[in-house]
Amino acid sequence: MAKYVQDFAEGDKDQKDLLGGKGANLAEMTRLGLPVPPGFTITTTACRSYMQTGLVPAELRVEVTMALRRLEDAVGRQLGDPYDPLLVSVRSGAKFSMPGMMETVLNIGLNDASVKGLAAISEDERFAWDSYRRLIQMFGKTVLDIDGDIFAAALDEKKGARGVVLDTELTADDLHELVDEFKGIILAESGQPFPQHPREQLDMAIVAVFDSWNTERARLYRRKERIPNDLGTAVNVCTMVFGNLGETSGTGVAFTRDPASGKPGQYGDYLVNAQGEDVVAGIRNTLSLADMKQVDPQSYADLMAAMRRLETHYRDLCDVEFTVERGKLWMLQTRVGKRTAPAAFRIACALVDEHLITMDEALVRVTGAQLSQLMFPRFDTTDSSRVLLTKAMAASPGAAVGAAVFDSVEAQRRAAAGEDVVLVRRETNPDDLGGMIASVGILTARGGKTSHAAVVARGMGRTCVVGAENVDVDPVARAFTVGDITVEEGQVISIDGSTGEVFLGAVRVVPSPATTYLEHGLDAALTQADDDQDTRELVRAVDRILTHADHARRLRVEANADTAADAARARSLGAQGVGLCRTEHMFLGDRRVLIERVILAKTDAERQLALDALLPLQRADFAALLAEMDGLPTTIRLIDPPLHEFLPDYTDLSVKVALEKERGALDPHDEELLAAVKRMHEANPMLGLRGVRLGLVIPGLFALQIRAICEAAAARLAAGGSPRPEIMVPLVGSVQELHLVRDEALRIMADVAAESGAELDIPVGCMIELPRAALTAGRIADAAQFFSFGTNDLTQTTWGFSRDDVEGAFFAEYTENGVLAVSPFETIDTRGVGRLVSIAVAEGRAARPGMPMGVCGEHGGDPESIRFFHNVGLDYVSCSPFRVPVARLEAGRAAISTAGSDAR
Amino acid sequence: MAKYVQDFAEGDKDQKDLLGGKGANLAEMTRLGLPVPPGFTITTTACRSYMQTGLVPAELRVEVTMALRRLEDAVGRQLGDPYDPLLVSVRSGAKFSMPGMMETVLNIGLNDASVKGLAAISEDERFAWDSYRRLIQMFGKTVLDIDGDIFAAALDEKKGARGVVLDTELTADDLHELVDEFKGIILAESGQPFPQHPREQLDMAIVAVFDSWNTERARLYRRKERIPNDLGTAVNVCTMVFGNLGETSGTGVAFTRDPASGKPGQYGDYLVNAQGEDVVAGIRNTLSLADMKQVDPQSYADLMAAMRRLETHYRDLCDVEFTVERGKLWMLQTRVGKRTAPAAFRIACALVDEHLITMDEALVRVTGAQLSQLMFPRFDTTDSSRVLLTKAMAASPGAAVGAAVFDSVEAQRRAAAGEDVVLVRRETNPDDLGGMIASVGILTARGGKTSHAAVVARGMGRTCVVGAENVDVDPVARAFTVGDITVEEGQVISIDGSTGEVFLGAVRVVPSPATTYLEHGLDAALTQADDDQDTRELVRAVDRILTHADHARRLRVEANADTAADAARARSLGAQGVGLCRTEHMFLGDRRVLIERVILAKTDAERQLALDALLPLQRADFAALLAEMDGLPTTIRLIDPPLHEFLPDYTDLSVKVALEKERGALDPHDEELLAAVKRMHEANPMLGLRGVRLGLVIPGLFALQIRAICEAAAARLAAGGSPRPEIMVPLVGSVQELHLVRDEALRIMADVAAESGAELDIPVGCMIELPRAALTAGRIADAAQFFSFGTNDLTQTTWGFSRDDVEGAFFAEYTENGVLAVSPFETIDTRGVGRLVSIAVAEGRAARPGMPMGVCGEHGGDPESIRFFHNVGLDYVSCSPFRVPVARLEAGRAAISTAGSDAR
Repeated sequence: MAKYVQDFAEGDKDQKDLLGGKGANLAEMTRLGLPVPPGFTITTTACRSYMQTGLVPAELRVEVTMALRRLEDAVGRQLGDPYDPLLVSVRSGAKFSMPGMMETVLNIGLNDASVKGLAAISEDERFAWDSYRRLIQMFGKTVLDIDGDIFAAALDEKKGARGVVLDTELTADDLHELVDEFKGIILAESGQPFPQHPREQLDMAIVAVFDSWNTERARLYRRKERIPNDLGTAVNVCTMVFGNLGETSGTGVAFTRDPASGKPGQYGDYLVNAQGEDVVAGIRNTLSLADMKQVDPQSYADLMAAMRRLETHYRDLCDVEFTVERGKLWMLQTRVGKRTAPAAFRIACALVDEHLITMDEALVRVTGAQLSQLMFPRFDTTDSSRVLLTKAMAASPGAAVGAAVFDSVEAQRRAAAGEDVVLVRRETNPDDLGGMIASVGILTARGGKTSHAAVVARGMGRTCVVGAENVDVDPVARAFTVGDITVEEGQVISIDGSTGEVFLGAVRVVPSPATTYLEHGLDAALTQADDDQDTRELVRAVDRILTHADHARRLRVEANADTAADAARARSLGAQGVGLCRTEHMFLGDRRVLIERVILAKTDAERQLALDALLPLQRADFAALLAEMDGLPTTIRLIDPPLHEFLPDYTDLSVKVALEKERGALDPHDEELLAAVKRMHEANPMLGLRGVRLGLVIPGLFALQIRAICEAAAARLAAGGSPRPEIMVPLVGSVQELHLVRDEALRIMADVAAESGAELDIPVGCMIELPRAALTAGRIADAAQFFSFGTNDLTQTTWGFSRDDVEGAFFAEYTENGVLAVSPFETIDTRGVGRLVSIAVAEGRAARPGMPMGVCGEHGGDPESIRFFHNVGLDYVSCSPFRVPVARLEAGRAAISTAGSDAR
Repeated sequence: MAKYVQDFAEGDKDQKDLLGGKGANLAEMTRLGLPVPPGFTITTTACRSYMQTGLVPAELRVEVTMALRRLEDAVGRQLGDPYDPLLVSVRSGAKFSMPGMMETVLNIGLNDASVKGLAAISEDERFAWDSYRRLIQMFGKTVLDIDGDIFAAALDEKKGARGVVLDTELTADDLHELVDEFKGIILAESGQPFPQHPREQLDMAIVAVFDSWNTERARLYRRKERIPNDLGTAVNVCTMVFGNLGETSGTGVAFTRDPASGKPGQYGDYLVNAQGEDVVAGIRNTLSLADMKQVDPQSYADLMAAMRRLETHYRDLCDVEFTVERGKLWMLQTRVGKRTAPAAFRIACALVDEHLITMDEALVRVTGAQLSQLMFPRFDTTDSSRVLLTKAMAASPGAAVGAAVFDSVEAQRRAAAGEDVVLVRRETNPDDLGGMIASVGILTARGGKTSHAAVVARGMGRTCVVGAENVDVDPVARAFTVGDITVEEGQVISIDGSTGEVFLGAVRVVPSPATTYLEHGLDAALTQADDDQDTRELVRAVDRILTHADHARRLRVEANADTAADAARARSLGAQGVGLCRTEHMFLGDRRVLIERVILAKTDAERQLALDALLPLQRADFAALLAEMDGLPTTIRLIDPPLHEFLPDYTDLSVKVALEKERGALDPHDEELLAAVKRMHEANPMLGLRGVRLGLVIPGLFALQIRAICEAAAARLAAGGSPRPEIMVPLVGSVQELHLVRDEALRIMADVAAESGAELDIPVGCMIELPRAALTAGRIADAAQFFSFGTNDLTQTTWGFSRDDVEGAFFAEYTENGVLAVSPFETIDTRGVGRLVSIAVAEGRAARPGMPMGVCGEHGGDPESIRFFHNVGLDYVSCSPFRVPVARLEAGRAAISTAGSDAR
């Protein structure tokens, strides 16, 4: 026979599967000898049986009877006893905390008879009737599913009739009347009277908890959180204790140390003569624990002892809920407590110093997400001059203050003149790149968290707010309006990329101590902290943990950097190489005219002329990058996007030419350009002539880039440097493609080596960013000296959606309906994309043992994804410079705990 | 020690890996006791060793010596003997026949001394010097890599000097002089004299064969044909026999039965007093075998006996090369012979009737490609009005009649007006795509079978003739000329994509007898064939084999049919269901205005109104389809393409609105439409808001379709029919999506069942057309009652290319450079796409045992792909109605031979 019921005294904290989180922790406290009111847990097994059969298992009724008998014996009272009734609470408690499930029914066991006994025993008639009133109200709402507003209205009416404001002002008689009225509501709404039999109350409450597992809201939550539907919930039945039995009673919540700052010392709130919900309701001011010590020194001492015991036992910050009933402390709940990012770092180090945990454990207790929270500069919330314009989507964190500008040219012009600017656009496109680089922040009226603006901004570490729908941008008038406020070009605005807030004027920015530490070292950060002890402790903790992470991790951390400046910044933040240098930007700006000539060339000779003109420019780009990264691997990706991205938009140009014709003023260059754009127009450019395909179809294009890399490397070698370039071929789908490019690269390498006298041995590898590349990685490894997983593109093709198109169109909907728990562009989809990565790693390494492999998609900077990359056996992750410290931390955590302790 | 040399007498036909195809068949004939000139084969093992080390293995030299010694003993002559020299030929012979490799050097063993012995022994001085001349010429060209034109020029000069036209008119003295001149060429061009030592000649020829394995052309061929680079070639060394030793000698080729029609009886050409290459050169008219019987009855009888022996032994049509040397027959080569499609069917059945093979084997001997060749309509060869303009390369089969047009725009204009057009271009490029789609046929003056025109036309199933070099296309004058005939734009021409013929005017098109059989049965086909015995035999053979295929196959064959008419046609061709009914067309034509209202709706209510108006229309569509397919499964796919496909093109509309504005005549509807189009415009619609995503985002859209299906089924049930609809959800990437649609479908099914009183149990399944769907098929199977693999889309996402964009842009290039052997849209890419299918089948079935699975991409009608689908365990293939017979045949073949016999 399956065991359906377990007394608190029988279980422990590791039985969350069986007892739920709440039940397991109640059992653990009981086991520790802490004063937990006796009770028992109905296990998830019972719930699962109920879900499968639709019936309460017969054995459960029997086991509940036995458990109740034991409970009654233990406390010396009986459920429903008319003179000294035992009352119990019933609470749901699943393995994972879940909103949408039935919470609590208190005071079960009261009925028309026992309420009188309770009044007599407690010597408090008002208390007894109020307790009964609460039972009926909660029971009606949560067990019988009656609209709670009906009870609330009756209560309000009663107070109105009595001319009082607070519930507490109602008398015992009032409450007695209310009980009768509530019973009437129950009968009217549910068609059945309020059950007088305590066991019937209990059984109905248990079934209600079971049923609440499958409410629409609970199912949606589970779909979103990927919690299996068949886990089921446990039900905790616990002897009632009362904090509202006068001045020697009370209730409170407490933390074993400060969850906000992480400072040592217990911390909490206490309310005399109150029940649990009163603390939250905030009717009266609560006391601090220090005040509690004055009021009730014994209970205070007991609480302190219990909390010390819990922290030592759980070896972590715990929070507790407790009640004092007539001078006797009762522990009602505990769990490992939530904390802020600074507290997480500080507490972890403190526990190490207290010899409660190891440095390894401390590392696992903090997260990359917390570190990145610590890194962003922030607005000073005490700045009273702030004028909030709107609040939109926080797309890339930070606090940016600058003059509003409305196009890329103006942004670059003002930035060059030393002005901070915020680029304001309806939405951005690749042409805005120069402007985005020049700006301190970007604000767009459209797009979601994965729009072009958001993605690029995160990549560059620019503060960004997107989807500000009530910001009406007029690029022609060079202004935007929000409601009746108009902001002209040049007016200063402030945007908060962590909150999505947009302010008028300049809000004061507070620098982040963690960033100072990361960029300039511990001493600089301590100097900046001055005598702010909390900050000093924080930066010391960050330093200790990050140092430990660097020591522990196996994954190398590299950075995605397209320019020498980006590379320098990445290196200062700890990057051990450049994992991805995109070369597209090298064809923008002034050089656009050259690539246009490449595209419009009518003969091979004409094209070659234009390519030759690009060679010295590319060489200089690579020379600067290699100088900055001297001694470290520098992976350069050959040109990836389709060529028409360097030409004007097809539709815009079509309209322009049509109008020119209409006006009899046709510009022949425009016409020629339109013909080219039309020829190159693709229905789905993402899936078109780009990457290696372009390289194989346009003669000389890849050759130009490969030669520029070789010449830059040769020159640097001649100058005594240690360049370590690597050539990366994008969008390979078949080993045949790579063989052709590799052959060409080896030819050019040999030519440049011969011309320069340098010894060149530049590795040639490829991106794995198409499902087919992953599925045939064993063959591609034949021609590739390294793999770099482009998980952005791999996500697009594996799921079959184009990031630009779908994020706005249905990601919101998909997150809402639970199809997506998180954007697969943020955190790697391990079942689909991740599986392809696993296949490629295993089969690539089988074909070429020891082959270096890394990832250069945005996932390279995402904590959860980094854990996956560690587990799958990659050698490095490459991410935007800003994410490098986060990646270092997460790589360390992954190395220590490859599964579990902090996983859900 | 590896064995590097094997005498012909030691091997057999199954040793193709070791001996190459030619060597294995020579060995087999020797083993059969047929008169093969003695010789030996240098194995592929030797070649592989040479390729790995760059050195001829020392053991090879020794083994060649031993083999030569045995050969000399056997024939009683010695290599280089000045009185009675043994001469040998050296021929390459790889496992797979490969153009680009060294072919043959004859007469090895002749030198300045032995030539005189040969003259004496043969009593033919001219023959001896001609043989020596030929040796030096072939040796210079193929072994020493000297430009063959230099020898040809010297020969021509000699003939000029002597005032003769034919080689044969040169005298022994002339040839002696030519030998000296050729030796001079060798010295001048290669820097070394022609080797006089016969063993040196032999060794150099062997190495030349080895080296020819790795020429650029051979490598490219292997890349295209996916032949491994490391197989290596064998080398056959064979005693020379001479057909040019007078009137009792001769040479010929023969087939054991007619390879064109399949008629029984040997068939061949014989040339008296000639060597092999003379037959091919066509200097003199050849004799038929009947004539040979008159000229040389003994050799004829020997040849007949040998051929009977071979056919009985190989149990198939064989072709042979033979030489008669002074009345003695020698067999020089044999292999299983190529044949036309009609011959393939007829021979297979004839061999069954002769008890040489079983029906299973007969089935494996024909291919779906051959059946589909039989199905193409053809020009009436009895049409005496045919005027042949030219004959060029047959690139894509069919018979097309239409007005000649010279550019894409004109093609589209005329096609839109209902005219059939043939697009005539020098060559095509991606700009011609629209025109190619609009045309019934394509004719180009340039390019080969893998040119842009050929590749694209085959992909689209358009009739195509390419490389018509004497067609002079003048696109400016809009005309082409062939000789003195000029064809102006609009004049009708007829092109035959199976023969490469181009005719002036409209040639009568007749249905093929096979098609008549397939659509109307054997009797109809026999009636049509009248007293044409070949045709009668052919249709009988097709009937027998196809009937056997239907009996043998495990795969069901269904059809892709969007309308009742398509479905009827498919059913008549043997389809056992509709595997894919696309519902998009149901929103086109008159109904476009309704779907436009769905899209432009400003409220849910407005949209619902438009959807409601569509309901009866959809219901009627499905009712007609279910009636036509009564009793058979009918799989209806919910709407797949993005909604904006039903709206005008974004660029066109932008230009229209801009011009309207410019002219002050803005149509408000256009403006509203443009706003909607712009809102819905996607950068990559293929990866955008379509399929299930659309269904989940636009309320009511899927519901409309599901309800229409349910109501149509209910009505048909009420009328006593047996409707078997299935609901298929497109573009599913995650099981969550399918759960949502399935829940909705079950709700609607229950509603319609309740309304109509019908019992509805309509399966809900999904397309597997995204890599992620395949990778998570085990989870998706949780919500899917069947899978249908959409291998078109799966190919696009797995490879990351959009068919529309890349086929024109780089498939020709990729086929040329060998990256693609065949378009993955034609034949399934087993390594990438196929692997995903395998994963999904295995994991889907593991989760839901016995789950029905099929394929509805175009691959469903491709022979090679069908074999794969059989092997991977699918239950059915669904293809276009026209391909149904091909699929039936291939499914039968796959069931019998899952690997091998007819594989390369």
